[in-house]
Amino acid sequence: MTELLEQLTSGDRRALSRAITLIESTRADHRERAISLLSLLPPRQALRIGLSGTPGVGKSTFIEAFGTMLTEQGLKVAVLAVDPSSARSGGSILGDKTRMETLSRNPMAFIRPTPSNAQLGGVARRTRETIRLCEAAGYDVILIETVGVGQSETLVAEMSDLFTLLLAPAGGDELQGVKRGIMEMADLILVNKADGDLLTTARRTVSDYSGALRLLRKRPQDPESFPKALAVSAASGTGLEEAWGEMRALADWRREHGHFDANRAAQARHWFMAELRAGLLARLDEPEVKAELQQLGDEVAAGDRAPGAAAARMLDRLKGMLG
Amino acid sequence: MTELLEQLTSGDRRALSRAITLIESTRADHRERAISLLSLLPPRQALRIGLSGTPGVGKSTFIEAFGTMLTEQGLKVAVLAVDPSSARSGGSILGDKTRMETLSRNPMAFIRPTPSNAQLGGVARRTRETIRLCEAAGYDVILIETVGVGQSETLVAEMSDLFTLLLAPAGGDELQGVKRGIMEMADLILVNKADGDLLTTARRTVSDYSGALRLLRKRPQDPESFPKALAVSAASGTGLEEAWGEMRALADWRREHGHFDANRAAQARHWFMAELRAGLLARLDEPEVKAELQQLGDEVAAGDRAPGAAAARMLDRLKGMLG
Repeated sequence: MTELLEQLTSGDRRALSRAITLIESTRADHRERAISLLSLLPPRQALRIGLSGTPGVGKSTFIEAFGTMLTEQGLKVAVLAVDPSSARSGGSILGDKTRMETLSRNPMAFIRPTPSNAQLGGVARRTRETIRLCEAAGYDVILIETVGVGQSETLVAEMSDLFTLLLAPAGGDELQGVKRGIMEMADLILVNKADGDLLTTARRTVSDYSGALRLLRKRPQDPESFPKALAVSAASGTGLEEAWGEMRALADWRREHGHFDANRAAQARHWFMAELRAGLLARLDEPEVKAELQQLGDEVAAGDRAPGAAAARMLDRLKGMLG
Repeated sequence: MTELLEQLTSGDRRALSRAITLIESTRADHRERAISLLSLLPPRQALRIGLSGTPGVGKSTFIEAFGTMLTEQGLKVAVLAVDPSSARSGGSILGDKTRMETLSRNPMAFIRPTPSNAQLGGVARRTRETIRLCEAAGYDVILIETVGVGQSETLVAEMSDLFTLLLAPAGGDELQGVKRGIMEMADLILVNKADGDLLTTARRTVSDYSGALRLLRKRPQDPESFPKALAVSAASGTGLEEAWGEMRALADWRREHGHFDANRAAQARHWFMAELRAGLLARLDEPEVKAELQQLGDEVAAGDRAPGAAAARMLDRLKGMLG
């Protein structure tokens, strides 16, 4: 354990991979070791950037270009994914390495696909812990990407310092396709493909979103100009420097005003409660409990026992079985 | 308790109200009595009809007209509401009685507003139990209404034998305003306001929805013609008989083919598990647990303890404290 910790904090990529595998394991003894390891990590901080974009907006190309630019500035970049669909299909290692070919061969970058857990909640837990491992391993920027499906954006925003929305150029009507709740989470909207034929459309889209953002409630803790929309082109590289500048400016402002740490503290508290609730509910999956649940469930289904009465009985039994 | 049960099953409205109040109480001794009462109820069944419609489609007028028609056929009708917004604002007794004035004075009808619980989950629990009470009190049809907000439609569908969607006449483009997931839950779509100037639009809307429904996956257990769309007018009474005929036809078919009881059995099992999970999580609200949670949460927020480690510790403590 001490050896793994040492190798990890010295920046050994294989140690990082091994530590992540340990964290992703569902074996009870692995879980115990994972918790010990996480408790021993140094408090090193990276900038955690959440990035949401539906398929087709050029998310992989953006991460390739943006990540490569950061590594050229001497920054170590980790890319993690929270992807409910690949969680269902059991990971997408090949996919992630293929779609970010340059970055995956870059020694300053580390790409880890969505762990192959069955549930989005499980994926979120592992990703949160992987973020901590990457920080301890010396990564400076952690990009946590998600396709915009269901709850995944909220989960990613809850584990990020900044939340970025990557969008395609679109007509004014299509703005409504972005849900208000998602828009409200965004610190920065990046309109991609601002190049060639789409340049004019992209610029108009930026101004449409800027207008929409002005109508949303301001966050009192942020500078007047945020949240904001920018045009970028992952293909030509246009606007990537500017986007990074905005991200740093916002993060610095929040650090200076104490909001950065306050946000992390609130996130950690939230994460603790989520882990606790998940852990409590996991008791229902223990073999002896499951057998009894099945029996009671059958009686309820047959109408021999009222659902509320069966639940009260099981709660009573749980005290005896697990207490 | 035996007295309350006797009065309730003899159809005494005040006994029904008292029983519902008992069920809505959060006091532990009331809860215990409520569970006993529910366990003693006779297995009498009503037809449980879920009804969703956003404000403006004429839901109250529909329930007034439809409910009155049923009572004229000698059927006893109960109207329950699962309304997250009134759950937040603390019930809407006056509102419900005012908006269904005729039905609320009808001795064959019983209207109960959303209980004033804080949470949608709590509202759902109480409504499920109130349905059982109404069945025991001799009601033949139970209308469970909800405004189409967030999760409430799913919750209502999970406690209904049939799920009905009440919609307003609309242009073809607006069909997309109905979420696919909601559409997939519907057994019957009723397009209201099929009268006067809107008659033609309503008929076209019915044919649009009929087309949309044909594109959805069929339910293998239902007759070919379901789910289906119909035009109704709550104001003029047109189509209400026909709608009731379709509901009965579908319920009868499902009863004959065993799907009706199978669905209720699955719903009861689901309800049992939901109660159990809620009960398990409720342990975290017990005063002694809360104090410890606060302490651990503070340590997590301060960075003195990793969230996962804190959760593991608390789970361990819970075994000792509650076991």
